[in-house]
Amino acid sequence: MSASRGQLITLEGGEGAGKSTVLAALETFLHEQGVDILRTREPGGTPAGEAIRAVLLDRALTLCAQSELLLMFASRAQLVDEVVAPALAAGRWVLADRFTDASYAYQGAGRGLDPGWIAELERRVVGVRPDLTLWLDLPVETGLQRARQRGGEADRIESERVEFFERVRDGYARLAAADPARVVRIDAAQSAEQVAADAVRAIRRRWFSERARA
Amino acid sequence: MSASRGQLITLEGGEGAGKSTVLAALETFLHEQGVDILRTREPGGTPAGEAIRAVLLDRALTLCAQSELLLMFASRAQLVDEVVAPALAAGRWVLADRFTDASYAYQGAGRGLDPGWIAELERRVVGVRPDLTLWLDLPVETGLQRARQRGGEADRIESERVEFFERVRDGYARLAAADPARVVRIDAAQSAEQVAADAVRAIRRRWFSERARA
Repeated sequence: MSASRGQLITLEGGEGAGKSTVLAALETFLHEQGVDILRTREPGGTPAGEAIRAVLLDRALTLCAQSELLLMFASRAQLVDEVVAPALAAGRWVLADRFTDASYAYQGAGRGLDPGWIAELERRVVGVRPDLTLWLDLPVETGLQRARQRGGEADRIESERVEFFERVRDGYARLAAADPARVVRIDAAQSAEQVAADAVRAIRRRWFSERARA
Repeated sequence: MSASRGQLITLEGGEGAGKSTVLAALETFLHEQGVDILRTREPGGTPAGEAIRAVLLDRALTLCAQSELLLMFASRAQLVDEVVAPALAAGRWVLADRFTDASYAYQGAGRGLDPGWIAELERRVVGVRPDLTLWLDLPVETGLQRARQRGGEADRIESERVEFFERVRDGYARLAAADPARVVRIDAAQSAEQVAADAVRAIRRRWFSERARA
């Protein structure tokens, strides 16, 4: 398998969507299929990226939209350079907890930055595109309620208003509509187990069904 | 004076060029002329920018060239948004210890990134261009020797090799050649007092000589 390029699977979705359960289920499933899988998270995933993450999420700091966007891409550039690109080149698969789509949704739709500018950043500093994206979608209020129940202090981005998260959700919906072959919407209002099962099914259908092998 | 836009003066140059002495002399001179002047530094100059600076200069971290470039522009975007643009709009003058030219010199010429890409970042996230740039130029070896004499530990960028700083110097030379009306080269191999006097003369000639008033 190391002769061919690995696959990049990305997971997108807001707080309370059940990403942790899904990530664990996908990792287990892929291991069972004999796939050498690497998990990453964003922002972060490298020592420099984690330091950038700390700046991005610090509630005591003020960041303009462009600065937030560039920090996200600075973290992503380092992640691709240090982790994602070498792994894919070595035939490993990468399971990414958020990737470039998050910038279109959060900084583009959410903060109102030009998607053409985000596309230019993607082209210039990221290069690699996901082979499959699972978008865990649920009503904003449901997600915020789940996040509140889980407790813990909200970070700088989590502290945004409901309208911001509505725009983010609309942003993801547009990405899914524009590229339905890549972006699979999963109903994350279901139980965590059901969400995980749907996510595994999407992966199975894409790479491990009889039809995919044929 | 607050009715008209303020002026942006930037100071560029490597370690050991005597920037601190020049900044103090320019500030004193401009105050004497009745100019309301604000000093900034890069990377940094805002709370978020200083946090980004800490990431950029941390010798324990690895940063690819694109990530370094985006962090520089993230810091600059915040500085412009929070400090430079409001000050200029209010008619204040800004004296900036490094600005966008540093990205062309360090990340462009030094790291080999496409200057067209840096120009796109400048256009998209900075907007404002310096009215006058003083480039404190001196042979790389002289600068490094001065920095060594001053002591202190070198940061991540200061730890680069001589060849890197030679490319940075060439980069500044190209910027000066391309825009001689804006970029004034000052011989920084002279004594700090002489360098400061030359810098003050350049400011005086541009804005405060009889000819400038006429």
